[in-house]
Amino acid sequence: MPKIKITLPDGSVKEYRKGITAGEIAFEIGKRLGEDALIARINGNLKDIFIPINEDSSLQIITYRDKEGIDVFSHSTAHLLAQAVVELFPDAKPTIGPAVEEGFYYDFDIAHHFTPEDMVKIEQRMNDIVKKDFRIERIDLNEGEAKKLFKNNPYKIELIEEFHKENQPISAYKQGDFVDLCRGPHIPNTGKISAFRLTKVSAAYWRGDSRKQQLQRIYGISFPDKKMLDGHFRLIEEAEKRDHRKIGRELEWFSFFEESPGAPFFYPKGAIIYNQLLNFIRGEYKKRGYHEVITPLLYEKSLWITSGHWEHFRENMFTLQSEGKEFALKPMNCPSHVLIYKSKSRSYKELPFRIADFAPLHRNELSGVLAGLTRVRKMSQDDAHIFIAPEQIEDEIFRVLDFIHCIYNEVFDFEYNVELSTRPDKFMGGISEWDKAEESLKKALEKKNIKYSVKEGEGAFYGPKIDMHMKDALGRKWQLATIQLDFQLPERFDATYVGADNSKHAVVMIHRALLGSIERFIGILVEHYAGRLPLWLAPVQVKILTVADRFEKYANKIKEELEKSNIRVEIDARTESMGYKVREAQLQKIPLILTVGEKEEANNAVAVRTMDNKVYFDVKLGDFLGKVLKNIEEKKVKVEF
Amino acid sequence: MPKIKITLPDGSVKEYRKGITAGEIAFEIGKRLGEDALIARINGNLKDIFIPINEDSSLQIITYRDKEGIDVFSHSTAHLLAQAVVELFPDAKPTIGPAVEEGFYYDFDIAHHFTPEDMVKIEQRMNDIVKKDFRIERIDLNEGEAKKLFKNNPYKIELIEEFHKENQPISAYKQGDFVDLCRGPHIPNTGKISAFRLTKVSAAYWRGDSRKQQLQRIYGISFPDKKMLDGHFRLIEEAEKRDHRKIGRELEWFSFFEESPGAPFFYPKGAIIYNQLLNFIRGEYKKRGYHEVITPLLYEKSLWITSGHWEHFRENMFTLQSEGKEFALKPMNCPSHVLIYKSKSRSYKELPFRIADFAPLHRNELSGVLAGLTRVRKMSQDDAHIFIAPEQIEDEIFRVLDFIHCIYNEVFDFEYNVELSTRPDKFMGGISEWDKAEESLKKALEKKNIKYSVKEGEGAFYGPKIDMHMKDALGRKWQLATIQLDFQLPERFDATYVGADNSKHAVVMIHRALLGSIERFIGILVEHYAGRLPLWLAPVQVKILTVADRFEKYANKIKEELEKSNIRVEIDARTESMGYKVREAQLQKIPLILTVGEKEEANNAVAVRTMDNKVYFDVKLGDFLGKVLKNIEEKKVKVEF
Repeated sequence: MPKIKITLPDGSVKEYRKGITAGEIAFEIGKRLGEDALIARINGNLKDIFIPINEDSSLQIITYRDKEGIDVFSHSTAHLLAQAVVELFPDAKPTIGPAVEEGFYYDFDIAHHFTPEDMVKIEQRMNDIVKKDFRIERIDLNEGEAKKLFKNNPYKIELIEEFHKENQPISAYKQGDFVDLCRGPHIPNTGKISAFRLTKVSAAYWRGDSRKQQLQRIYGISFPDKKMLDGHFRLIEEAEKRDHRKIGRELEWFSFFEESPGAPFFYPKGAIIYNQLLNFIRGEYKKRGYHEVITPLLYEKSLWITSGHWEHFRENMFTLQSEGKEFALKPMNCPSHVLIYKSKSRSYKELPFRIADFAPLHRNELSGVLAGLTRVRKMSQDDAHIFIAPEQIEDEIFRVLDFIHCIYNEVFDFEYNVELSTRPDKFMGGISEWDKAEESLKKALEKKNIKYSVKEGEGAFYGPKIDMHMKDALGRKWQLATIQLDFQLPERFDATYVGADNSKHAVVMIHRALLGSIERFIGILVEHYAGRLPLWLAPVQVKILTVADRFEKYANKIKEELEKSNIRVEIDARTESMGYKVREAQLQKIPLILTVGEKEEANNAVAVRTMDNKVYFDVKLGDFLGKVLKNIEEKKVKVEF
Repeated sequence: MPKIKITLPDGSVKEYRKGITAGEIAFEIGKRLGEDALIARINGNLKDIFIPINEDSSLQIITYRDKEGIDVFSHSTAHLLAQAVVELFPDAKPTIGPAVEEGFYYDFDIAHHFTPEDMVKIEQRMNDIVKKDFRIERIDLNEGEAKKLFKNNPYKIELIEEFHKENQPISAYKQGDFVDLCRGPHIPNTGKISAFRLTKVSAAYWRGDSRKQQLQRIYGISFPDKKMLDGHFRLIEEAEKRDHRKIGRELEWFSFFEESPGAPFFYPKGAIIYNQLLNFIRGEYKKRGYHEVITPLLYEKSLWITSGHWEHFRENMFTLQSEGKEFALKPMNCPSHVLIYKSKSRSYKELPFRIADFAPLHRNELSGVLAGLTRVRKMSQDDAHIFIAPEQIEDEIFRVLDFIHCIYNEVFDFEYNVELSTRPDKFMGGISEWDKAEESLKKALEKKNIKYSVKEGEGAFYGPKIDMHMKDALGRKWQLATIQLDFQLPERFDATYVGADNSKHAVVMIHRALLGSIERFIGILVEHYAGRLPLWLAPVQVKILTVADRFEKYANKIKEELEKSNIRVEIDARTESMGYKVREAQLQKIPLILTVGEKEEANNAVAVRTMDNKVYFDVKLGDFLGKVLKNIEEKKVKVEF
């Protein structure tokens, strides 16, 4: 029996009989992999797992854990949907049904308008088909056969004519009696699709062209098991509850007005959060040798030409005219800082020269892509530029990584990962300069004990960079801190320093923002903590509830005491029930709710309710103040007594 | 003898013989006034004092204390200059010689180029003419006589032809042998011009038209006595030394770049001053119930139409297009704050509602009028808007006045005066509403014991206002704080509150900025204090100078100790002479210069040199720290030990 050699992803090579399928090999490797196998990557191409392999090949078994597996799974669910629809509505003509970012859709030409009741029926029929567990088979046809098979569906005929290539078969996939024109690949049998839901019906046009036939589009999502489906919808529900736009509006933290699209209004409470973050960063700047500057927002075109923004970023800038000259609102701070750097001759003794700026930046994003605080037209970054000599790269990057560690490990409880992007195909500067710089970045990462992955060739053309992504409480990833080396901007501006050798050298710039945009960071924080911000950030830190009118004086005494230590306090002395007042303070996401009555006043104490609804009775006022101040000082995420 | 009645400025009426002159009446009123009299306002018109008065008239004697007196004095000095020039340079043809804002000039057509030596000679000749004390006489001529008199001067001929009116005499003024064509009036005799100086020669063109004859312009300034002349030049010299642009550049506090005209760059040290001022104001906001907000900068045209800015302020706004819509950068915060106020229904219980904002504002000033920090295109104000019920006006204005008192009496040592501007001829709202509001403002001013003057009819059309002017160390006046009531903007935006009666009422707005623009305030501070800022504002508060290398460790210990208390410290450990290091620190305007050597280290002490160059020896470190912290806490203007 002829043998073939199969190379697996771990590099191992195994011999199998010629004609074996990927599905069989998967089972041979392990039962679990055999059951999970959806498709296979054979010699780099995605294939059905039941295709015989007849020559030496590399092979990767694809399951739902792979992005390609998820896409094929969704696509096969679209076929399942189409089968159910044509069985229930024989007049429906399926057109196309791809996988999309989340799930899939299928467009049908049908006179009947799908109703919610139809959706229930279609889902039931899909379940029936799943239970029948049809094999999903590939059929190769010639043009004549294909046109004959789809003669009643003008859309498929149009597709056949468009995509058919001379002397190449046209493929279709068959499950039970249902056949659909399709490139494939597909999962091996309908029985795998045990968890799905149809989510939405909307109008669509053939080929997205509103002058063509109107169709009905059914959206859905599917998973290999029910737990994943439930988890998905729980997450959506949770994300909706945590939506920062909703929380921001409800708690009067921030809001948007149509008069200024993409530019948030921070209300008094939101401005407290904003300023607390700035003060935190400012405090670190002081310790870490950064110097804040305050810079203009509008600059003449000539500056943007020198910086390269006019060529590469122009459509993202707001431009205007004054006295016959063209100006642009700055989208980034770098050129302003180069001007400051260049305002006098700099000696190597002045390096590293670190300047920080919270200037409002403007980017002319399309109004269609604006999304709450996470995609805005106006924002400020905790932005700084560091001017260094090339030999200072490692040391300075280490310092920046230490700063990141302080923010994300010591202050916020974020999981994050770090990527190093290296020299791309198109780059400026010399290879040895790049190699040295990349080596310095790696050494700094290793010295700081930070695990990182390398994205080969994904650096910017002007220098390598380190990016940091955090994973929020719902498992969503957000790009936050970025550190970029830049050999180019100093060259464009002829920014130099005088070295110990008394001659001029090109300076190296580091662009770095650690929170990123303050606006976006607040949006992410609000969703991550579902509005329950750490004590030091909470706009109102303490709310005092009086058990009865006569304790208002004592409540005021406490308030004054706490305010002397700059704690943000409110009193609720209304004659509402205690339950009502507690509930309202909790909805306001206030970290510490104090109740004061007879006993508390007698003991100079308070009863404390924390955000996780634990209650501590008879806490002496001095102890309370001490713990609160320590928690704020240490920027803890939780309060405990 | 026929009598006429003369009405004096105080309303008194006196009888005099017909034909008396203003000069004679002045002497009759008092010798001093007689000697000081320059010209007279007779029935509203300015006249020479030697003109006989032949009918009942109102009369005001004008001296150098009046603006009109200064102008005429300057103008007469221009004639004096012309007389000296034509005597010394008979070829010179005088053209025109007006008074200007400071002093006067005269333009001459002459082939010779005036040299500095010429200026000395001309000044001497002017002195000779002053000593001769010529009467300055008016001569009325007809056109023929005039043209004959000035036949050798084509410029005067051109003026005669241009301005001569049928049947009206043409006037000229004669002193000694010199006659000049002139409308007048003039001072009575050249002897009064006892103090003058020629300041500059420059090129000019006949009628300012560069296609016409080039002339030479001589500038000068004059005073009735030498003390005033000396004072004037001392002040100019001092103002030049204190010029905030010069100090800002030299001390690296702030600077400007041509890429962003009118928009200052605050360097690290300048940003400290800026942020200290903001923090001071923020601290007061906390005590006084103001809430900071953070707002967008770009707003759609529709907002500016509603606010009225599109109609009244459009050419001062930077406007731009995005997605086919027109936007403007905000020049003021008011509309942003109205949007926040209107974001929900407001109850009378929420009033006064005070929102504050440090947003950067942009005003498209002509580049020609930009002047350092005092006239900029980009700035932030310590701006707040207060929304109140009409019956809260008095109380709230009192609070704002108290805030002003805190800033300008308790913190800065500024002399200031206050003006109340009342209902103008064109106004909106009802008269009784205005009367009540003005009454409330007056009551608040009186309750706060603030002296004020009333500028009748000089309020804005939308409400009465209170302005505050400070007088700086050089006696120059600057408008700073402003408090404006506004009945109009709430109406334009339909901003209301629900009263205790459960129905809607128009809210009243107060616009108020107390420092004014932070940029401008810093400019004024720097000039007022000649760069020697109070300790709490100084970018570097303490500089430690080591007597020798081996004391660097002790210097560092002190630095760390002080920095723990947030004091801004630098060390100068260079091996330069102590005199050199002290001089340099003084030039840097550092309030406290410490020197440390053997004795200081042994005693855990420092030698302290204050800004006024007093030295205190053997100050214990603990005492020093305590005094410094107290001075900063109390925001004192001076440091004493």
